Amino acid sequence: MFRARIDASLLKECVDAITAVVDESRLKISDDGWRVRAVDAANVALIDFELRREAFDEYENQTDEEQETEIGIDFSKLSDILRVGWRKGDITLELNDKLHVKMNALSYTLSLISIETLRKEPKLPSLEFPTRVVLDAEDFRKVIKVAEKMGDHIVMGVSGDVFFMEAESEMDSMRFELRREELLSLSGDNARSIFSLDYIAAMSRAMNVETVTLYLGTDYPLRIEFELADGAVHIMYLLAPRIESE
Amino acid sequence: MFRARIDASLLKECVDAITAVVDESRLKISDDGWRVRAVDAANVALIDFELRREAFDEYENQTDEEQETEIGIDFSKLSDILRVGWRKGDITLELNDKLHVKMNALSYTLSLISIETLRKEPKLPSLEFPTRVVLDAEDFRKVIKVAEKMGDHIVMGVSGDVFFMEAESEMDSMRFELRREELLSLSGDNARSIFSLDYIAAMSRAMNVETVTLYLGTDYPLRIEFELADGAVHIMYLLAPRIESE
Amino acid sequence: MFRARIDASLLKECVDAITAVVDESRLKISDDGWRVRAVDAANVALIDFELRREAFDEYENQTDEEQETEIGIDFSKLSDILRVGWRKGDITLELNDKLHVKMNALSYTLSLISIETLRKEPKLPSLEFPTRVVLDAEDFRKVIKVAEKMGDHIVMGVSGDVFFMEAESEMDSMRFELRREELLSLSGDNARSIFSLDYIAAMSRAMNVETVTLYLGTDYPLRIEFELADGAVHIMYLLAPRIESE
Repeated sequence: MFRARIDASLLKECVDAITAVVDESRLKISDDGWRVRAVDAANVALIDFELRREAFDEYENQTDEEQETEIGIDFSKLSDILRVGWRKGDITLELNDKLHVKMNALSYTLSLISIETLRKEPKLPSLEFPTRVVLDAEDFRKVIKVAEKMGDHIVMGVSGDVFFMEAESEMDSMRFELRREELLSLSGDNARSIFSLDYIAAMSRAMNVETVTLYLGTDYPLRIEFELADGAVHIMYLLAPRIESE
Repeated sequence: MFRARIDASLLKECVDAITAVVDESRLKISDDGWRVRAVDAANVALIDFELRREAFDEYENQTDEEQETEIGIDFSKLSDILRVGWRKGDITLELNDKLHVKMNALSYTLSLISIETLRKEPKLPSLEFPTRVVLDAEDFRKVIKVAEKMGDHIVMGVSGDVFFMEAESEMDSMRFELRREELLSLSGDNARSIFSLDYIAAMSRAMNVETVTLYLGTDYPLRIEFELADGAVHIMYLLAPRIESE
Repeated sequence: MFRARIDASLLKECVDAITAVVDESRLKISDDGWRVRAVDAANVALIDFELRREAFDEYENQTDEEQETEIGIDFSKLSDILRVGWRKGDITLELNDKLHVKMNALSYTLSLISIETLRKEPKLPSLEFPTRVVLDAEDFRKVIKVAEKMGDHIVMGVSGDVFFMEAESEMDSMRFELRREELLSLSGDNARSIFSLDYIAAMSRAMNVETVTLYLGTDYPLRIEFELADGAVHIMYLLAPRIESE
């Protein structure tokens, strides 16, 4: 049993951040808040999502037996409902054998997905990123949009004092670069990896934030981190690199 | 012969209210104003529409012989034109053997449809509704939108002091309920009927109003009423219930 | 070699004006600015486009050998990129063996199209238009939109003191007319020609301007002229008339 109240638009942003990687997933509910850790069907992208108790206006976790409840949620269905519902105001969430989503006088009851049918929560791979870049999230989103016009992958990296993103089509090419002084932060070594654009594009659409932090290496995964609600929501994506076939 | 002037956006709302039920219909023009009463092809929905003389800025009904002129109009074509035309300002309507719709310097001439080819104006069925509910029109529209995500029908009714709307899919369900004190008005007995969502959805899109009045019964039709232009436009929909097959 | 800086939204409007007629075209760059003169594949529409040096914030034409450089550009690709990029701020353009379009920290490199593969620049046909009309561009665009609902062609002309645009479908018809005193200017003789709507519709979407000037004759081409950036951009379309088959 669980009962909580949260701002409608914040919940929508959280759900959209999750559905960038998975439609259905396990959700862990504890005294600390909500947590989702899941990988997509192709094992290319991982989300580690945390919605802390402070982000809620009310939060009652009435689990007696154990500290943590684990349920299976169809987040894409929840996203659909939140899109057409009342965007302003609060949403009350109540969990018993189903999840009850209350928007004003509307109560939407979402069946839980049997946990056994969902993939196990993945372990976080142990990764050491040599390079860290903090940049404006809107810039990042815009560059991804332009890159989508060109092809299906994007190169991201750091060379000396410069962070760069590159994409190319048969005829044309695109390069975005920011020097150390134009970034919010740049630290670490040179790096260069290629990633699938469709994953990054889905992730970038969830970034309605001011800044985003990237962790990079060479032919190495990408880690993207950003926060909502003054840090009460923490979203981390991991994306496997593509093998360069030249 | 008939000549009148009316606000462009009001005329658009009126035409959209009519096309929620019928594309083509008879239109009766008299000294009192315009009237449309029509049923859809499947005989499931009826509109009774009245646009009173006061809603017009100018109104000249020059019919000598009889009090009332009856013409056939393709309202969906008119809706199309009003959508792309000037939304602000007035529209002048002139009727002779065709309907001339003048927006600024543009005159659009709509051929009349031969009345013989159109269905007869239906009689209003004699109905006694045990229950009447007045609620916020935006709430009604939102609930219909959420319900459309779930299936093709909706249950509406009153149980004690509570007005409710319910929809369900194979897995999930939705219930909207407002208590007497949350409604603008609730009177009458308990009621419960099922309706096709596609009709109600079309009707609800025309409800750019503050409040809407519903008349309900048990396994009985639904009557929806709302007004535009401070009551100078009155719209009434009747919708047959669906037979519950459980 | 060429280098210039220009407002992003102005460049977008220019490119959209060109793609109303051709996707790919020759572009002539000289000390005076940019010039495009091209006809569409069906030889029905011509654009004569001039973007004068004054419209740029910076302009360096470093061509030594000759006064004018001619390159081949895929304007529809450029339009695509400008649509998703930063709409505000400046764009820097640099030409060497490719065209480099710099928006903030993003540099988009567009391959040039070999000039030999592009149609030769057409000669401007020698035309004498008996009639000239200046009108509100928004009115023109609205009328074109309504006309598109009716069919695939439009009649434009002048009769006495009246400029008119007419379209018709099997059943209905539309007539827009403005008298001399309602126009910004009307001079010349009576005129009447028919034109394909799809060309005019594409052209009209580029007219984000206050006024547009039309040159007309009888069964004669249409010339449309408008300016952007206080006259520093001049756009002229020529459109062949359709033969009336009645």
